Amino acid sequence: MKNKEIPYKIYLEEKDMPTAWYNVRADMKNKPAPLLNPGTHQPMKAEELAGVFCDELIKQELDNDTAYFEIPEEIRNFYRMYRPSPLIHATFLEKKLGTPAKIFYKFEGNNTSGSHKLNSAIAQAYYAKKQGLRGVTTETGAGQWGTALSMACSYFGLDCKVFMVKCSYEQKPFRREVMRTYGASVTPSPSMETEVGKRILAAHPGTTGSLGCAISEAVEKAVTTEGYRYVLGSVLNQVLLHQSIIGLETKIALDKYGVKPDIIIGCAGGGSNLGGLISPFMGEKLRGEADYRFIAVEPASCPSFTRGVYAYDFCDTGMVCPLAKMYTLGSDFIPSPNHAGGLRYHGMSSILSQLYDDGLMEAVSVKQTDVFRAAEQFARVEGILPAPESSHAIRVAIDEALKCKETGEEKTIVFGLTGTGYFDMVAYEKFHDGKMDDYIPTDEELQVYRDKLPKID
Amino acid sequence: MKNKEIPYKIYLEEKDMPTAWYNVRADMKNKPAPLLNPGTHQPMKAEELAGVFCDELIKQELDNDTAYFEIPEEIRNFYRMYRPSPLIHATFLEKKLGTPAKIFYKFEGNNTSGSHKLNSAIAQAYYAKKQGLRGVTTETGAGQWGTALSMACSYFGLDCKVFMVKCSYEQKPFRREVMRTYGASVTPSPSMETEVGKRILAAHPGTTGSLGCAISEAVEKAVTTEGYRYVLGSVLNQVLLHQSIIGLETKIALDKYGVKPDIIIGCAGGGSNLGGLISPFMGEKLRGEADYRFIAVEPASCPSFTRGVYAYDFCDTGMVCPLAKMYTLGSDFIPSPNHAGGLRYHGMSSILSQLYDDGLMEAVSVKQTDVFRAAEQFARVEGILPAPESSHAIRVAIDEALKCKETGEEKTIVFGLTGTGYFDMVAYEKFHDGKMDDYIPTDEELQVYRDKLPKID
Repeated sequence: MKNKEIPYKIYLEEKDMPTAWYNVRADMKNKPAPLLNPGTHQPMKAEELAGVFCDELIKQELDNDTAYFEIPEEIRNFYRMYRPSPLIHATFLEKKLGTPAKIFYKFEGNNTSGSHKLNSAIAQAYYAKKQGLRGVTTETGAGQWGTALSMACSYFGLDCKVFMVKCSYEQKPFRREVMRTYGASVTPSPSMETEVGKRILAAHPGTTGSLGCAISEAVEKAVTTEGYRYVLGSVLNQVLLHQSIIGLETKIALDKYGVKPDIIIGCAGGGSNLGGLISPFMGEKLRGEADYRFIAVEPASCPSFTRGVYAYDFCDTGMVCPLAKMYTLGSDFIPSPNHAGGLRYHGMSSILSQLYDDGLMEAVSVKQTDVFRAAEQFARVEGILPAPESSHAIRVAIDEALKCKETGEEKTIVFGLTGTGYFDMVAYEKFHDGKMDDYIPTDEELQVYRDKLPKID
Repeated sequence: MKNKEIPYKIYLEEKDMPTAWYNVRADMKNKPAPLLNPGTHQPMKAEELAGVFCDELIKQELDNDTAYFEIPEEIRNFYRMYRPSPLIHATFLEKKLGTPAKIFYKFEGNNTSGSHKLNSAIAQAYYAKKQGLRGVTTETGAGQWGTALSMACSYFGLDCKVFMVKCSYEQKPFRREVMRTYGASVTPSPSMETEVGKRILAAHPGTTGSLGCAISEAVEKAVTTEGYRYVLGSVLNQVLLHQSIIGLETKIALDKYGVKPDIIIGCAGGGSNLGGLISPFMGEKLRGEADYRFIAVEPASCPSFTRGVYAYDFCDTGMVCPLAKMYTLGSDFIPSPNHAGGLRYHGMSSILSQLYDDGLMEAVSVKQTDVFRAAEQFARVEGILPAPESSHAIRVAIDEALKCKETGEEKTIVFGLTGTGYFDMVAYEKFHDGKMDDYIPTDEELQVYRDKLPKID
């Protein structure tokens, strides 16, 4: 590796941007398990999904064979606004740690949504528009996905209806205002706009909502409103396909300078970022062309990979969505509200679950205060104030770099910096004030939810 | 202009980064008026300023002749973290407006401080460290400058003491937390840590503070603490010198594609961004090598250029700083608290004041709701959610582009997009809810402050 020639920030030129997404499923020997109809337990067919999702996206969702999907020109035009994103050689961090390791990070936060979510939002909005739809619905918790979708819908002149978990709506008004700036309609959930919302409000008048409830409202709104469909920002195969742009750009940039990573690290909530980052590298591994260590990093408070089970489960707490086979903690599991990051999903992408089960990637869980210590250290030397989610990857990248310091190995570490933490300063404040704790569920707690998993033959 | 060949985002390579700042004073026939000692009304000498400011910065402040100051390597290293900043060809905005004009903007918001302020913060921290100081003090209102300085001090291991206007400290806790993340000590002002703070608190027990009071506390703390100096983020000649990096990069990027601007537009509070952006172009105009229209945009609520007078005035409301000759509304003038942007300073850079008085640049004032309308329109097509300050420039860039639409002229417009609005969502919320008004001071109001200007022979 000719270190001297590598600039601090590697910006690809627009002409170097990938023109097709890569579908890692095409190279998987063991394909991810299909979605099942929650009633019949039979694989979902395209026509069953058509009322909920856009047609073109269903095709992408169900296609395990096509390796490359061309990125439509309209989407590539939008990508130009904030892509190619920089691959940064973390020289300041390396120096601070005194490690012989080389550290690179792919920074996806340089756009107003503040994260990689925009990569899939614009694709989903495009296909909805192409299908002649009027609008889309979705749910959002902390608001990153809702923000990204608002921007994408604004670009294509599509209505955007966001159900935002009520406590977030009230406690995090800034994200809500960003969505409104982009013309989205934002409704605190549960609401009186849907039947499921009314039922929940009748049963629990003072509830501040949950992601599961918001999903149910968004799905109901989509299927009951003419010209609307429902869209989702993570977990689904189609999302990982769109997010492969992250890994493809990373690989082009590394290849340009002759750098071959040893370890690739990403935070894992539903898997959208991790799956996107590792896809092209995993493809090489699956085809026997190269070998890499892949590490998924999850919070100790929501340890789907490291303490979940690989089983069919509901994707939402309302149990209205199809069943997916995945590493899951159970669809009723809700991590401690103390946990600051967005990595709160009970399950995990079916693709990543299969790859993990096949021993092709590793997973580690990290404690929250350790994550924020890494975040602060990173911010002070690299300048960028990271999102709590992204900081899970930073934590493990630093840990691996420190191992190299002990052994003297010059490993090359690449990690995904998915976003910025500008809307997460309440969490940073808790950390500074020593009011952040390290909740870890007990085995007994987890067993309660495992026992409730649906029984599928 | 060969439009087709211009990428949407022009990223210079690191090797193209300027290695020297440009001092526009060297090319001015009429030099900016010197700072005066508030007691003697005689020009301030370096030794009089030495207790307050760093030695090297005083040299830069007083030097009207040296055209270029080399940027020290340590500062250039830091600049690499977020520079060169992109020059963006606003093709989405052009299309939306249907204008034949070509619009470019220099985007300075892609760093954690969220604005151009970091360009001078790192320079000032560097010279403080080089002088062997322990720390620096400053004041901050909305918090952009305080954030930038915190990042810079963290990088050089320098203590950073920020007096933050109390109402901002309480109402805008997020910026405060960003500063704490970078290790700064943030004190709500007025405080019991200074004599002036104690006096003010005794006289006005319930006060929520003001920028003028925070300046006085920061200056007192600097001059009474061993190894400390005071630093300031705008207005001063040294700040415009450091900010010339904005204009120099802009010019290199435009030259690379053979683009010659007709109009250059910047928002103007104290003048740091506008002065930095236009400096190298103004230099060409002063030397008779080229001609450009320069437009300073200020809020109608704080119209220093368009309704102020050109006179010696105090730089702070506490009247402890030197007197500066500038376009001013009077040092007691405080714009309506309703005004959302950071462009609240009563005066203006002495350099820009002289250039304006010499007829070398124009100024316009714009109403707040018109500014937010432009901000929202811009966000929806260009993706970036702009800071309210920057949006003043967007407003006039759009207005000029629409004039071109009427006349059919293909003018090239360049404006400075100083930062992002992620910490200004309260203002956006007011705008969305129709609760934002367009305060404009009456002539009678302004006359009250004019009458209080110090009498200097």
